[in-house]
Amino acid sequence: MSANKDWINDVKFDDKGLVTAVAVDQGDGALLMLAHMNREALEKTLETGRMTYWSRSRKSLWVKGETSGNTQRVVSAHLDCDGDALMFKVVQEGAGAACHEGYRSCFFRKLEAGEWAVQGTPLVNPKS
Amino acid sequence: MSANKDWINDVKFDDKGLVTAVAVDQGDGALLMLAHMNREALEKTLETGRMTYWSRSRKSLWVKGETSGNTQRVVSAHLDCDGDALMFKVVQEGAGAACHEGYRSCFFRKLEAGEWAVQGTPLVNPKS
Repeated sequence: MSANKDWINDVKFDDKGLVTAVAVDQGDGALLMLAHMNREALEKTLETGRMTYWSRSRKSLWVKGETSGNTQRVVSAHLDCDGDALMFKVVQEGAGAACHEGYRSCFFRKLEAGEWAVQGTPLVNPKS
Repeated sequence: MSANKDWINDVKFDDKGLVTAVAVDQGDGALLMLAHMNREALEKTLETGRMTYWSRSRKSLWVKGETSGNTQRVVSAHLDCDGDALMFKVVQEGAGAACHEGYRSCFFRKLEAGEWAVQGTPLVNPKS
């Protein structure tokens, strides 16, 4: 988005070199997912315009949707007051499923009567 | 919200005993803030219906808005697929400012031409 990278100095990475990144839908603002980025993932996200996270489990860069096709195109990047969390407005591409379980949003479970009740149905079969 | 606390076993607290918690506006789904909760903060949030976080800087429970009046009333709680992030739909009370800098949302800076540009104006003067 810019060759000037001074902006990255305002981002506070934690003791593991990570910052929390939230993706919201550009259309209606719905919270799609929450993950993490290291400095390289953040730079790559803005250079390529595709959401790129750091997978804490796989310990590697993770271009969202690279295998599933459910990529996320970056529309804009926003930093919070403390500088330790980023919000990205994105266009959720592919089948529109941000969640690896096939749901539009990863936050598809709602607490109801002491249990996490699944809301809605998957847009895609995650096993397909 | 419930005497049954089995639900909390599905929440994965990290190696510091924390889980990421995001508050979104019940009305339009706008992302208001991102903070953290330990187990006690999460339990207190659901018992009292007021968003209660763990302040990592002050190392203490933090009832959001306790001093400013900008409390957050819990409408519903949602867990993500990995169990390590929570989303809460809330009614932002008081002056409607979730951010301690007086803005509605903590994510009031947007990356524009390599700089974090402030979007909008504060709803309240944080120094008042």
